[in-house]
Amino acid sequence: MRMVDIIAKKRDGGELSQEEIEFFITGYTNGEIPDYQASALAMAIYFQDMNDDERASLTMAMVESGDQIDLSAIDGIKVDKHSTGGVGDTTTLVLAPLVAALGVPVAKMSGRGLGHTGGTIDKLEAVEGFHVEITEDEFTRLVNEHKVAVIGQSGNLTPADKKLYALRDVTGTVNSIPLIASSIMSKKIAAGADAIVLDVKTGAGAFMKTDEDAERLARAMVKIGNNVGRRTMAIISDMSQPLGFAIGNALEVQEAIETLRGEGPEDLTELVLTLGSQMVVLGGKADNLDAARVKLQQVIANGAALEKFRDFLVNQGGDGSVVDDVSKLPQAAYTIEVPAQAGGVVSRIVADEIGVASMLLGAGRATKEDTIDLAVGLMLRKKVGDKVEAGESLVTIYANREDVADVKQKIYDNIEISAHADAPTLIHTIITE
Amino acid sequence: MRMVDIIAKKRDGGELSQEEIEFFITGYTNGEIPDYQASALAMAIYFQDMNDDERASLTMAMVESGDQIDLSAIDGIKVDKHSTGGVGDTTTLVLAPLVAALGVPVAKMSGRGLGHTGGTIDKLEAVEGFHVEITEDEFTRLVNEHKVAVIGQSGNLTPADKKLYALRDVTGTVNSIPLIASSIMSKKIAAGADAIVLDVKTGAGAFMKTDEDAERLARAMVKIGNNVGRRTMAIISDMSQPLGFAIGNALEVQEAIETLRGEGPEDLTELVLTLGSQMVVLGGKADNLDAARVKLQQVIANGAALEKFRDFLVNQGGDGSVVDDVSKLPQAAYTIEVPAQAGGVVSRIVADEIGVASMLLGAGRATKEDTIDLAVGLMLRKKVGDKVEAGESLVTIYANREDVADVKQKIYDNIEISAHADAPTLIHTIITE
Repeated sequence: MRMVDIIAKKRDGGELSQEEIEFFITGYTNGEIPDYQASALAMAIYFQDMNDDERASLTMAMVESGDQIDLSAIDGIKVDKHSTGGVGDTTTLVLAPLVAALGVPVAKMSGRGLGHTGGTIDKLEAVEGFHVEITEDEFTRLVNEHKVAVIGQSGNLTPADKKLYALRDVTGTVNSIPLIASSIMSKKIAAGADAIVLDVKTGAGAFMKTDEDAERLARAMVKIGNNVGRRTMAIISDMSQPLGFAIGNALEVQEAIETLRGEGPEDLTELVLTLGSQMVVLGGKADNLDAARVKLQQVIANGAALEKFRDFLVNQGGDGSVVDDVSKLPQAAYTIEVPAQAGGVVSRIVADEIGVASMLLGAGRATKEDTIDLAVGLMLRKKVGDKVEAGESLVTIYANREDVADVKQKIYDNIEISAHADAPTLIHTIITE
Repeated sequence: MRMVDIIAKKRDGGELSQEEIEFFITGYTNGEIPDYQASALAMAIYFQDMNDDERASLTMAMVESGDQIDLSAIDGIKVDKHSTGGVGDTTTLVLAPLVAALGVPVAKMSGRGLGHTGGTIDKLEAVEGFHVEITEDEFTRLVNEHKVAVIGQSGNLTPADKKLYALRDVTGTVNSIPLIASSIMSKKIAAGADAIVLDVKTGAGAFMKTDEDAERLARAMVKIGNNVGRRTMAIISDMSQPLGFAIGNALEVQEAIETLRGEGPEDLTELVLTLGSQMVVLGGKADNLDAARVKLQQVIANGAALEKFRDFLVNQGGDGSVVDDVSKLPQAAYTIEVPAQAGGVVSRIVADEIGVASMLLGAGRATKEDTIDLAVGLMLRKKVGDKVEAGESLVTIYANREDVADVKQKIYDNIEISAHADAPTLIHTIITE
């Protein structure tokens, strides 16, 4: 088998066999196939696409390119959730204890990563004492006994995907549905998921700018998951503005607690109920989405979801009392309001630019070496469709520096006020198969 | 400027500016742009094509990537000819003295190369004493005084093309009209051509298998040439069977001499008259193709063309008496006939496989290190459309080994005899602008 023939076959619109895809992924991972052939193939795939069989083969070849996490010692159907990213996305912090409260095991591997705010682990470390330095045995025991635990990512997961993604990033081949879908799905499967729920964001703050593209990606991933024996569901959700109000690490933990208590932002609450319902169904704890939603609403109303969060924090060394008193979370030295310069209706909040504003405060990492300030961030006071009077606060800045003129300017530049605007629809599409 | 943006622009169907193309070619030549970005761009070009301006920019950027031969000391319009390759193509050996006899300066740089037979220099070295080890001053003087000379390729011509071609060869991006056209044209222009005549082969033995593809390539090259100030013409000619009768180095020299004497194969004669007419027009020695053809026929008929060949050989140390006595060329030890196994009409001679048969005898090089046997080769006795009786010779094998069963088998496998067949049309299209 020769790589140049595989490239030519795909270039001419042919279907690559499982053997050909495995030959490529194995050879590329071990360095026998050079970058220049991989990038040519990626560009050919960009133009010629891959069919369902090819996508499944590519995903599993990448899964098999490295270590695979064995969660078989954990009872039940392990359901993992993936979001394609956005700004102020507190979803994981709420969903983990919420579905665990219904007995769905949440065995979460998480990273720190780069971005507008920290990763899930960074956020949880805003709770004093909380840590993810636990052994795999302890991790397994915690999930079996308490249904939820988080551990730092370990092992050499999907090295083929890491290498290929880095290459795609510099060769104009990122934006290809089969390549994006197999990249995401391979990581989830290698991390041990039995079933997968996907939150594909759409809009200005998302990677997929249009509903059509988001739906194509979502359907591609659902098909791959189901074709490789992992039940998979997805939703398309709005990321034209930040989700919820909080953007920042401690601020998002606070918002998660409020949401678990039933007092969270409307959009965040709706999103976790929608995604949570899919997780509960896939986890075998409800027969259908409606029944699952009712159960989730019950554990919010009766306090079981919040208690599960406390339980989770305490199990991993955290101060459980933050769920009663969010003032125990890191506090910023200064809180500064950003008053509206005119009255009207908020018509636009540019999600990724507002994320950049929070980075200016130190809430996220631009490079791996950056230190995160867990206390700082932004709290939106208005969302798209909200009426606002001149002088009323649009955003509260939580800062550890007094002069935040740069952050204010960034916010003013990226929040528009008009005569009229409607709140965007949050859930665009629900895909169950 | 970033290479990834250039790739994305082409991927999305955009037009690359001259600056962008120069950025790519300069960076790729000096190693700042890696192979994996160049191959991704090549694949994007494969799918999205390039317009006339881009093709001209790419060609000139490759010309400027290395040395350029300065032929300005040679008087007159230097017309170069390029063939896209084939089997038994004796054209250059005939054309050079033929047009020189009409005063068109032929300043030929040539190489040895790989293939079924040797390069032009190898073939000429079948004439005892002939050599191309002459200084540039001597080369210039010879062309000015005698209108024809051949020198070995020197200097670092079009390094960008060499590097890009090697990359395309292993990344499935060879077969792209803008990339093929710019590659060929850049080499001709860097070698100092003022005007260019192109012989694009079509058919089983050619790189372009169909007339449509051959014509697209020819028109692309003619457009590039004229857009960068080099008058260019082209023809599409048949390569469904070998050209002429001879395949082998000394055998082709002998055939060239016969053709210059007006006794050559019909197809070879017609091809050199067609290409030669274009060269004479572009060289300013006739007003139109018909007038040029008449002049060419005259110098064949009056012996001036053959005398020019003798003159050319003698000027570079060769034994000019071979033009009177071809038995002075290297002779093979064995001549073996290949009799037809049945009677009928020759309906197919697979050009490239017949070329392989000549390589089995040692007439060509598979690797740079191989030594060529100048005496060996094949002489076709029948061509497509010729009647043949059972037992009549199809081919004469000229060998320096007694057992040629492998060569015979190869020939039988690749010559078909049927009840009826027409001779193929030699000249498919003539493109003058």
